[in-house]
Amino acid sequence: MAFYLLHAPDSYSDALAEAIHAVKKELKLCARCFNLADAELCAICRNPKRDPHVICVVEDTKDLIAIEQTGAFQGLYHVLHGQLDPLQGVGPEKLKIEELVLRLRDEPVKEVILATNPDANGTATALYLQRRLKPFDVKITRLAQGIPVGGDIEYVDTQTLGASLKQRTEF
Amino acid sequence: MAFYLLHAPDSYSDALAEAIHAVKKELKLCARCFNLADAELCAICRNPKRDPHVICVVEDTKDLIAIEQTGAFQGLYHVLHGQLDPLQGVGPEKLKIEELVLRLRDEPVKEVILATNPDANGTATALYLQRRLKPFDVKITRLAQGIPVGGDIEYVDTQTLGASLKQRTEF
Repeated sequence: MAFYLLHAPDSYSDALAEAIHAVKKELKLCARCFNLADAELCAICRNPKRDPHVICVVEDTKDLIAIEQTGAFQGLYHVLHGQLDPLQGVGPEKLKIEELVLRLRDEPVKEVILATNPDANGTATALYLQRRLKPFDVKITRLAQGIPVGGDIEYVDTQTLGASLKQRTEF
Repeated sequence: MAFYLLHAPDSYSDALAEAIHAVKKELKLCARCFNLADAELCAICRNPKRDPHVICVVEDTKDLIAIEQTGAFQGLYHVLHGQLDPLQGVGPEKLKIEELVLRLRDEPVKEVILATNPDANGTATALYLQRRLKPFDVKITRLAQGIPVGGDIEYVDTQTLGASLKQRTEF
């Protein structure tokens, strides 16, 4: 980056410095879902076409962006900003979990998709959330685990292939 | 292999030659499911503990072995020995499809899992089988497509992530 800037015109490096400054100053977290936002609410929460009955819970904004890119989801999000990690001292109070519970109380939510990562801590976080959200009358779902689109059964790892069998769907 | 054999004792290379000879002579295809067999029926079809109500349809024996290794499936198999491939002249008559239809007529099958590969020809093969098997009173399912166990949502390809959302399951 330093070498590139040495050869770039002054106007370019000035604009870059300005932009980096602005990121920290103007970007904030959405007051509802904790996605990145340039206003009180983020662009997704402000969009009246999004379905307020489904909330997809993700660990961080990068996961939200990945799901947005599929175009397969029209609901709202809730960004936890991390996963439970008892060994590192990350308990429920350090994530945006209380805020999610309040949304279930106040918003017309019918389904919560727990889209935490399918690793150990992500799965533990999903299990914790499932217990916390049980008192509410909402459907709780999780992303299907299974074989990749376009892949080859022979080369899929044993655990994922086992999961894809257990979660098989009607054709 | 040649260099290894040069340094191996004669008894080893004799045994290897004998074994290669025996593979072609003694291995055949199971008369019921077309898995590799050393008798009229393969070891899985002969096993009385396997559930005869579920048939898992795979493209080839390597897929069968991969699914067996998961330990998640207790039913029987049916090996097609290929996938439909119109451009290469592989039509339904070149696969063990008629044999599968006969099994549905004669065996107490309640569910057929179409575990063809999730690529273009494998999906086309599954769609063809779905139409062929529709007249029978059986449940037709397919392997879940989705995120890998232990993976990271952020790095899953867009199509697979979209499929995992659509096929999401209740927690």
